[in-house]
Amino acid sequence: MPPRPKAFSRLVTELARLPGIGPKTANRLAFHLLSGPRNRSQALSDALRDSLENVKTCVVCHALSEGTECSICADADRERGLICVVEDAGDLYVIEDSGAYRGLYHVLGGAVSTVEGKGPDDLKIQELIRRVERENPVEVILALSHDAEGEVTTTCLVRALAPTGVTLRRLASGLAYGSRLEFADSVTLSRAMEGRREI
Amino acid sequence: MPPRPKAFSRLVTELARLPGIGPKTANRLAFHLLSGPRNRSQALSDALRDSLENVKTCVVCHALSEGTECSICADADRERGLICVVEDAGDLYVIEDSGAYRGLYHVLGGAVSTVEGKGPDDLKIQELIRRVERENPVEVILALSHDAEGEVTTTCLVRALAPTGVTLRRLASGLAYGSRLEFADSVTLSRAMEGRREI
Repeated sequence: MPPRPKAFSRLVTELARLPGIGPKTANRLAFHLLSGPRNRSQALSDALRDSLENVKTCVVCHALSEGTECSICADADRERGLICVVEDAGDLYVIEDSGAYRGLYHVLGGAVSTVEGKGPDDLKIQELIRRVERENPVEVILALSHDAEGEVTTTCLVRALAPTGVTLRRLASGLAYGSRLEFADSVTLSRAMEGRREI
Repeated sequence: MPPRPKAFSRLVTELARLPGIGPKTANRLAFHLLSGPRNRSQALSDALRDSLENVKTCVVCHALSEGTECSICADADRERGLICVVEDAGDLYVIEDSGAYRGLYHVLGGAVSTVEGKGPDDLKIQELIRRVERENPVEVILALSHDAEGEVTTTCLVRALAPTGVTLRRLASGLAYGSRLEFADSVTLSRAMEGRREI
């Protein structure tokens, strides 16, 4: 066994658990963190610790939040009759960055996925139903990925929300089939938002 | 401005400073760290903090080390007459993993690079000269990259070490194991031809 310091090996192991980071990249990153300027690595370490201590999940929409309620849910200027359902908080920021939407959000926490072993019960669908019953919004917009997993999740949501009688819309074409929301550009997203259609 | 929690934005900024990690990937990683299971993210945070506290640089060879001297330098069973010069600690582990070498190492801390603005004075060359004078090894092996930067660095080292009179060798140039002749570039082929050996 090569005499790598134990703490270094543990760092490589933990880095390699990140999505899209293989063992070789994890190794390279760990070397960079420990061989490069230590103040930069310390800044990352501090940022990570600070985030884990201070970034929570909004009790209403389940987005990332600094308090119990996120700044969007707490913002009185948002259109409170609109709830946009997204897979994760990352998708929420993509939509926010496009500037095409001024309503509220609901973060599902993923999509139904046989690959990841995620079923409807692993998503915040019951929370969404209760929220729709409580808040009685004008419209719920499904802004899910336009791929197989997004379609299955859409079907689940349509069934689950049918009893509430709420108007359901989805993002319009403009997103190519098979593309994922997180890689969409703002123009495409704006057009998809404008052309949202009833399901 | 999208209402991202401040600690989250700081985490994205710090992640994006890592080599090969762009802003989109940094964003995705930060979401994963804060939206996924917190105990995994906490484990990474702990591993990083622990590494920064406990992984040092060996005073002799400049490899990563748990103490002032690394486990290779402290190992009495290594061949102490051989010093293998590598660009970084990552290259050291590649050689260790191959099991092909049982001598000591010297980590330069990179290669001479106009792109990265790294000159000979940014590398541990003076430390190597002093070490060769002090330890008087049988042989110094240059295990640098076989590319333009590695060649320039090799030239610098050959000049710098000439006054010590130590025997300098470099890794053989040639065809990689498993490579096919038809895909070999002409420089590699020329070198393999020059360095041909009796069977």
